[in-house]
Amino acid sequence: MAGNTIGNIFRLTTFGESHGPSIGGIIDGCPSGIKLDMGMIKAEMARRRPGQSALTTPRNELDAVEFQSGLLDGTTTGTPIGFLIRNTNQRSSDYNAMQQTYRPSHADYTWDEKFGIRDVSGGGRSSARETAARVVAGAIAKQFLAHYDITVQAYTSSIGNVHMSKSYAELDLSMTESNDVRCPETELVAQMTALIETVRDAGDTIGGAVSCVIKGVPPGIGEPVFDKLHAELAKAIVSINAVKGFEIGSGFGSLGLKGSEHNDAFYNQDGRILTRTNNSGGVQGGISNGMDIYFRAAFKPVATIKIEQQTVDTKGQDTTLKAEGRHDPCVVPRAVPIVEAMAALVVADYLLMARTNKCDFY
Amino acid sequence: MAGNTIGNIFRLTTFGESHGPSIGGIIDGCPSGIKLDMGMIKAEMARRRPGQSALTTPRNELDAVEFQSGLLDGTTTGTPIGFLIRNTNQRSSDYNAMQQTYRPSHADYTWDEKFGIRDVSGGGRSSARETAARVVAGAIAKQFLAHYDITVQAYTSSIGNVHMSKSYAELDLSMTESNDVRCPETELVAQMTALIETVRDAGDTIGGAVSCVIKGVPPGIGEPVFDKLHAELAKAIVSINAVKGFEIGSGFGSLGLKGSEHNDAFYNQDGRILTRTNNSGGVQGGISNGMDIYFRAAFKPVATIKIEQQTVDTKGQDTTLKAEGRHDPCVVPRAVPIVEAMAALVVADYLLMARTNKCDFY
Amino acid sequence: MAGNTIGNIFRLTTFGESHGPSIGGIIDGCPSGIKLDMGMIKAEMARRRPGQSALTTPRNELDAVEFQSGLLDGTTTGTPIGFLIRNTNQRSSDYNAMQQTYRPSHADYTWDEKFGIRDVSGGGRSSARETAARVVAGAIAKQFLAHYDITVQAYTSSIGNVHMSKSYAELDLSMTESNDVRCPETELVAQMTALIETVRDAGDTIGGAVSCVIKGVPPGIGEPVFDKLHAELAKAIVSINAVKGFEIGSGFGSLGLKGSEHNDAFYNQDGRILTRTNNSGGVQGGISNGMDIYFRAAFKPVATIKIEQQTVDTKGQDTTLKAEGRHDPCVVPRAVPIVEAMAALVVADYLLMARTNKCDFY
Amino acid sequence: MAGNTIGNIFRLTTFGESHGPSIGGIIDGCPSGIKLDMGMIKAEMARRRPGQSALTTPRNELDAVEFQSGLLDGTTTGTPIGFLIRNTNQRSSDYNAMQQTYRPSHADYTWDEKFGIRDVSGGGRSSARETAARVVAGAIAKQFLAHYDITVQAYTSSIGNVHMSKSYAELDLSMTESNDVRCPETELVAQMTALIETVRDAGDTIGGAVSCVIKGVPPGIGEPVFDKLHAELAKAIVSINAVKGFEIGSGFGSLGLKGSEHNDAFYNQDGRILTRTNNSGGVQGGISNGMDIYFRAAFKPVATIKIEQQTVDTKGQDTTLKAEGRHDPCVVPRAVPIVEAMAALVVADYLLMARTNKCDFY
Repeated sequence: MAGNTIGNIFRLTTFGESHGPSIGGIIDGCPSGIKLDMGMIKAEMARRRPGQSALTTPRNELDAVEFQSGLLDGTTTGTPIGFLIRNTNQRSSDYNAMQQTYRPSHADYTWDEKFGIRDVSGGGRSSARETAARVVAGAIAKQFLAHYDITVQAYTSSIGNVHMSKSYAELDLSMTESNDVRCPETELVAQMTALIETVRDAGDTIGGAVSCVIKGVPPGIGEPVFDKLHAELAKAIVSINAVKGFEIGSGFGSLGLKGSEHNDAFYNQDGRILTRTNNSGGVQGGISNGMDIYFRAAFKPVATIKIEQQTVDTKGQDTTLKAEGRHDPCVVPRAVPIVEAMAALVVADYLLMARTNKCDFY
Repeated sequence: MAGNTIGNIFRLTTFGESHGPSIGGIIDGCPSGIKLDMGMIKAEMARRRPGQSALTTPRNELDAVEFQSGLLDGTTTGTPIGFLIRNTNQRSSDYNAMQQTYRPSHADYTWDEKFGIRDVSGGGRSSARETAARVVAGAIAKQFLAHYDITVQAYTSSIGNVHMSKSYAELDLSMTESNDVRCPETELVAQMTALIETVRDAGDTIGGAVSCVIKGVPPGIGEPVFDKLHAELAKAIVSINAVKGFEIGSGFGSLGLKGSEHNDAFYNQDGRILTRTNNSGGVQGGISNGMDIYFRAAFKPVATIKIEQQTVDTKGQDTTLKAEGRHDPCVVPRAVPIVEAMAALVVADYLLMARTNKCDFY
Repeated sequence: MAGNTIGNIFRLTTFGESHGPSIGGIIDGCPSGIKLDMGMIKAEMARRRPGQSALTTPRNELDAVEFQSGLLDGTTTGTPIGFLIRNTNQRSSDYNAMQQTYRPSHADYTWDEKFGIRDVSGGGRSSARETAARVVAGAIAKQFLAHYDITVQAYTSSIGNVHMSKSYAELDLSMTESNDVRCPETELVAQMTALIETVRDAGDTIGGAVSCVIKGVPPGIGEPVFDKLHAELAKAIVSINAVKGFEIGSGFGSLGLKGSEHNDAFYNQDGRILTRTNNSGGVQGGISNGMDIYFRAAFKPVATIKIEQQTVDTKGQDTTLKAEGRHDPCVVPRAVPIVEAMAALVVADYLLMARTNKCDFY
Repeated sequence: MAGNTIGNIFRLTTFGESHGPSIGGIIDGCPSGIKLDMGMIKAEMARRRPGQSALTTPRNELDAVEFQSGLLDGTTTGTPIGFLIRNTNQRSSDYNAMQQTYRPSHADYTWDEKFGIRDVSGGGRSSARETAARVVAGAIAKQFLAHYDITVQAYTSSIGNVHMSKSYAELDLSMTESNDVRCPETELVAQMTALIETVRDAGDTIGGAVSCVIKGVPPGIGEPVFDKLHAELAKAIVSINAVKGFEIGSGFGSLGLKGSEHNDAFYNQDGRILTRTNNSGGVQGGISNGMDIYFRAAFKPVATIKIEQQTVDTKGQDTTLKAEGRHDPCVVPRAVPIVEAMAALVVADYLLMARTNKCDFY
């Protein structure tokens, strides 16, 4: 309840600040019998890690995952999977200037108000480094889902005001990893890249959007009323650092539509019940309907900028701040695997919960 | 976990289908010592109830709340507050035609897939009637919050593509209840009303948006990482029927901004730490910063329309459906108190959780 | 978390004080498709209700259960089952004298310390009347378990120091309901009855024990480490009013034994793995082993006695108290169905949780 | 829910098998501002560790705790405290013979039934080594409680049928650590020691009891109905390996008493409300009454014995087994700090929960 656990059955609890010995977590409730592909986990970590391209922070973190438990010869045993990722970057002088100053639009001030004590180095627990543990757990959730032919694919859909013009269905999502921006509409990549480079060179940052498609979820997954499938997805995605908005299916675009335009007509295709449109985004009444689930998340620009800003110090005195150090000019390309991880965790959890809906004698 | 409970400490569990004897719920964890204003609860119920104006369904439900426990002479005792609201509308012939047909963009099909059995009358558990229980609990949460000078105010900010042009800070929110649309930018009311009437007369429906402002939350409320305050708000709001999107603060507008434009500069005003802008929407790193919390929710158009639609029956055979009966042409005006209720429940819960953050000897 | 909910998947949340309009609860997570036998629920309520025999309080409560939701033609739909039981006994003068006095070994004082406000009538929320809601939910859990040939049978094993001499395996448990004491070792019934009558006539009360046997639980049910099956049973049983102790299998008798005496040797009988003894009580390492699960609970004597006692009033002044009114001289006979209900709720919940242990492709 | 988490606010989640790289856990919800005494944590670990005396297994484990997060210069920050303890004992030939054989009264068989896969080495997750993580968290909980002058003290009260004759109030509990048995009634130590040595030399094991006293808990701590304070204590204690029974206050002794004998009379001593006897064990109606909380736990004899036993192999074939290796002849002396740890975790959690009971304006 103190905020570091997600999930009901397939659960992740995480720990760690960016400059302690390690960060890590415990995955509890992962079913037994999944033969893990360690290379895939490594690859997912590489997608998230800083220093992966010229568009991200030049901080280079290897992020090697050390599993401590829950596996027998690489197969899940049903016991908790403990893991840790050592922190290799030590406390740097970059942060010294900021120790006594509240960085604008960071969590420094709110953290102090909440706990009265704060590990200032590297943003402490509110550092984006915390998301590495999410990607580990998400990679395992994805491997679990793969056995049910469920896939989770995210991609960059906006960098600043450079927006994709196509829906996911018109795109070849396999192109996502073909470029550093992680945009499958490849004709936009140059423009997006240029925008990131421009703000980076100005010491500034830029926001963007990540879209995500989940294919293969069978109908009937989701809990009614408060724990609707898309409500839990909303929470999981909004819990990612820098996310300011979430929309599923038609999303904010739905508000200008009429019911006759928005409703998804059912039809029967070879015995399967499908819908002709998918404004619902694959979820109706909080429960999956078997169509693709897709949603979009808005990421604000990274708050750390190399431009002087007005702020206060921890005594409340007005001061100014200009960040040093190595930071991401745009978090969006690296957020793509994090969005996937969170979506995979939710779907894995809900898939397991759905096993308890019906009497099996019924 | 089966989806009918929300909250960690201040918790609401609900039951009820729209055509059983009653709907209701149990509020557990409400602190002792709140002298309830029953008139205020009644007034909140009146804001949500059908038949309240020409813009809503003409179904007339009184929605009288009968408290069963947890109160001593109207003051909360700390024990669970059980309540029920009798259903006065009985099974009607309106629904007969729909019993064997999956209504497009409703939960009929997904519910069948999940449970294999479904109370077809009135939409069963997925009926919007379920939200009445939310409003009861939200009214009590609001009264709890009022003791801390925390207020929760929502209002209609869009009907279809008629959007408000002002931010909440430029508006007199006390005007919200002055009109049936619940729009405080009163010069838009006629246009919004006309739009709802037009679609209603065409047997169609229209979407819209509800915005919400929470004032008075002290800094330091929120749980880090997965249970960020705005993540829980996102879930609570998206769990409302027909919500397709949620954004806090700058929301989707943030993605086109630079960090230097988006960051909220801190300054000291008479000893209080404030921010000059509030793109954060009152939450930084998942924790309140003492500024106003504001967010917006997108509501899709009501799925029930009096226009013939293609669909399938429960056997999977293609068929058509044209709704009869009394339905809302636009859910947004009635959704305003529901949005407030959900926000109040989250803030009450998080305010209580924050009591456990620090050692009181510290 | 505020204490009025039990269970993870098959969950019960209850409300109600003994003198409000009703008590009741919400059963969430009950799988769909159970055709309920309402007569059986009624019969279970009759086993618990006051006034059922000369050995219990002469207060006569009918305890009719009114289901509000979650059923379609008597079959569970998977949605929450709301129910209530009206309170027919109104505030009586019996309680007037006690309003300002803390009854020894009751919860009056502790409740005041916790909440600062208390509904004194009839013991408020800490009244044994609260257990009626447990029996309703337990009856439904039993019907669910019956489909898996799991049975839960409890019986009186001690009244005061009149103890049964036989183990459950030597008894005909169908004799339990043949007598008002609910003791299947029928040759002890006269002695037990006489003891209850003797203390009753003296205005006093007496303790006792209830034993319980759960048959048919397949091997593999239970969660390791903190949520061991017998740990959850311990909590559920100790949560019943007046329970002071719990033991499973060999229980406190195990502490004087050697490992060579206590270990349960495995053997193969027609392809099934069984144990020759069952000191484990059907649970090893927190997980069922397929043998009978059996446990015993100690009930203290009822605290309400018609004998003058020293105590303090709510101002802290020394005073005396002598109860009037109608009370149970021994709670044990009526506790038998309550013990069964709690055991059934735990097993139903754990049976559902076990569905998520393994990958079904494994 | 998968069983590896305990607590609502002050929560512990653990991981680890006895022969992986490490075991460990995450403590979430520990309030900020506790300056940890690392020497005390080390001392608690030493009380639990194998090899500490001639009465325990000669396996020697250092059990050094490595904290990974949640601390700033040794003070808790409110963020999750991750920790690990490296396993130094590697897979040994001791276990080879047992790999294909179900050890009687162990969790091998039930684990296989539950998960279908099992790490046989060292008992895997069901090894008593798991309790080391409990002791770490319990030590921190104790330090938190110490600020409120709450102490948790356990001791050996029986070894086999050598039982203590005195109640805790008649004993000098500071003598508990004066001897290897951890019995404060020191005149029994020689007899207890001799009994353990006798069974050890015979390759056998013996059970016993641990009693525990919690002093200083203020009145008003506990949750009503299902989460009664002593119900949660029961679960926490019964979740310890080898525990077969739990009793609080008068416990099983209460069942032979009359209400007039058992009731605890209130009286006023210098303005404090106390009880003359304490059969309630410090808890009435699930809530602390300010008196000492005391309880007793029964530990069965260790299942691993060096005497040939009948059993079956993993194919279900009858076979025999005779354990090799180094094992405890009696778990009770080492269980004393584990019992304290679990009790401290429960009380810390409930103390925090009680902060949310009342409106602070009330």
